Amino acid sequence: MTSLDAGLAGGEGSDERRRVQRRIYLDDAGAAPLLPEVAAALRDLTTANPSSLHVEGRAARAALDRARDAAAAELGADRSEITFTSSGTESVNLALFGSARRLPKKARILTWAAEHQSVLGPARRLQAEGHRVTIAEVDGAARADPDAITTDTALVSIGLANNEVGTVQPVDEIVRRAHEVGALVHLDACAGPRWIQVPHGPDLISISGQKLGAGGGGVLFVRDGVRIEPLLYGGPQEWGRRAGREDVAGAIAVSTALAISGRDRAGRAVVAAQHSEVLRALLEECGGRLTGASLRLPNFASATFPARRGEDMLLALDVAGVAASSGSACASGSLDPSHVLLAMGLGMEEALGSLRVTIGYGTTGDDLALARAILSSVLAPTAARA
Amino acid sequence: MTSLDAGLAGGEGSDERRRVQRRIYLDDAGAAPLLPEVAAALRDLTTANPSSLHVEGRAARAALDRARDAAAAELGADRSEITFTSSGTESVNLALFGSARRLPKKARILTWAAEHQSVLGPARRLQAEGHRVTIAEVDGAARADPDAITTDTALVSIGLANNEVGTVQPVDEIVRRAHEVGALVHLDACAGPRWIQVPHGPDLISISGQKLGAGGGGVLFVRDGVRIEPLLYGGPQEWGRRAGREDVAGAIAVSTALAISGRDRAGRAVVAAQHSEVLRALLEECGGRLTGASLRLPNFASATFPARRGEDMLLALDVAGVAASSGSACASGSLDPSHVLLAMGLGMEEALGSLRVTIGYGTTGDDLALARAILSSVLAPTAARA
Repeated sequence: MTSLDAGLAGGEGSDERRRVQRRIYLDDAGAAPLLPEVAAALRDLTTANPSSLHVEGRAARAALDRARDAAAAELGADRSEITFTSSGTESVNLALFGSARRLPKKARILTWAAEHQSVLGPARRLQAEGHRVTIAEVDGAARADPDAITTDTALVSIGLANNEVGTVQPVDEIVRRAHEVGALVHLDACAGPRWIQVPHGPDLISISGQKLGAGGGGVLFVRDGVRIEPLLYGGPQEWGRRAGREDVAGAIAVSTALAISGRDRAGRAVVAAQHSEVLRALLEECGGRLTGASLRLPNFASATFPARRGEDMLLALDVAGVAASSGSACASGSLDPSHVLLAMGLGMEEALGSLRVTIGYGTTGDDLALARAILSSVLAPTAARA
Repeated sequence: MTSLDAGLAGGEGSDERRRVQRRIYLDDAGAAPLLPEVAAALRDLTTANPSSLHVEGRAARAALDRARDAAAAELGADRSEITFTSSGTESVNLALFGSARRLPKKARILTWAAEHQSVLGPARRLQAEGHRVTIAEVDGAARADPDAITTDTALVSIGLANNEVGTVQPVDEIVRRAHEVGALVHLDACAGPRWIQVPHGPDLISISGQKLGAGGGGVLFVRDGVRIEPLLYGGPQEWGRRAGREDVAGAIAVSTALAISGRDRAGRAVVAAQHSEVLRALLEECGGRLTGASLRLPNFASATFPARRGEDMLLALDVAGVAASSGSACASGSLDPSHVLLAMGLGMEEALGSLRVTIGYGTTGDDLALARAILSSVLAPTAARA
């Protein structure tokens, strides 16, 4: 029985612990806890169809319009440039498939190897459909090189920040270079907008509600004049870009969270940067090698521990009360080596020993002090397996 | 200023009325009110990522698994046959694009002209992509004719019931005939499962959470052995059929509502059938011509009033306290003639004069008595325009 099996088999015991044990949630980048402002905004919400003419329907339409205006204001956009989706993954897929399927097949589509799976998945699929797709290399900090943009590039997809190691990407430079050669730019802004401003240059911008503390929902910004094909066909909702009855609750949730990010990110970032610096120093003291660039999201502390397995560290931290991540969430119950770390040039052994702790809006100084004690104890070099 | 403009301009007054006026919601088919059992199930829900290894993530995974098992039990399926989506429209699009894109281009795809836009939209798109698509005619009651299934048919899409006039479709016969020629059958079960059982024969079945009182979310049943292409690419979630962090809340909502439908539909249908019979008689007394077949969903009463405009009737009813529908929800603020009514052979004038009142789980005998009085007053033949 691996330690992972033991952890799962002990599920009831874990639940018991959760009730009596103080939990420190340091997985904000994995899923942000629901913001109280979002919970308040969703209270007593109508479930009526915004396309209905009756009072209930018109109230739903008005709520949806307010949500759209709030999202537009935060992104410096017009309401017609805002499309609500079900998730960040859907936004990214709609941006990439939607714009790529209007391009001639010989047009080049460019992204980088450390982008999120929701970017690389569509890129590989577009390649299978006959498009010319380049997945460019990144440097040892997961940074994308704008030089990968060639004169035949028609669509570029770049993340605002890497979601595993926090590296902030050179978005402005990529936008400038891409626009010089006439390419569209999609910005995957799923990771980061809680902490840094979303830039105004890209033609398409994807936002994830769950990464913002909205619980769910997504936004796709599509610049006025940029045409995309829908993924979902049917009714004329969302400016013809996404058919189906609008999810008013999801739209309110994501736009509320986006507005809170705009209001709070500057202040939160200062505190988070101080906290994460402490955590990064601690990870190094415990034998970890920091991952990512020095220009990183302010809430990130990530490292690799070559002599350890990520899931062992996660489960030991979990038992001690700290929720952390290995960087890449696992879907199968066991961790595959992270494609991001491999793209950064790490060996398999190092990639399997990764740990990511990310601070949230609700992380307190007390949380940090307790987390330091637990991390020190669990990650102490003497605790390493032979 | 049309009466629609007047109604919208008077929005604040309408809101005021809503606070003091008893509302009777007879638009269950447009959007079912949130079930109290769903609201209870969503209380204190985690927003953690079900793919995370920590306690919070495992709790989310366990909740998602329970939701999947509940949906599977209600549909007589295995958990591996259940894919959660964001909506009924997404389920239908995934079923149709997902299965059609694995077919050879010469294979015939068949549906009928009175199906929902979320079926006809993908069908037309598949035609534009080079597939052979047949959109067969329906009879005067919107009934699909199984004879449209030809030996070269590879994929058939049929609704459980028509969402505008309630006609129950000959699903068993269509499944039998389709399977005889080796075609896959997709059942659009977005309209109806609150009232009638979802049959077990189809290969793909789409379910809409908002039509079930879940507020949102969707399910796609994919029979074991049937392969579909995803619409969303990225992570391996939902058996590889739909990438993206799972919406645990949406999954719980739709599976709870599906279970409530299974538990309550037989009893509710008896009451609704009595109520809707009264309403249909009333619509006829007021000069309406009933639409749909006698084998209809038990909560449906729909009719056309040739000398009237649907939106005038809706807004007059709305002012008097009754939320009704014209059958087809409008997205533009003005009503287009319903494609369903036109497919049934109605003239433009008749199609523009349609009214649909649909009873919900919460509709009481008192509601019905008051609704009768209001409908009689608003629809009295003397109130008709010249």
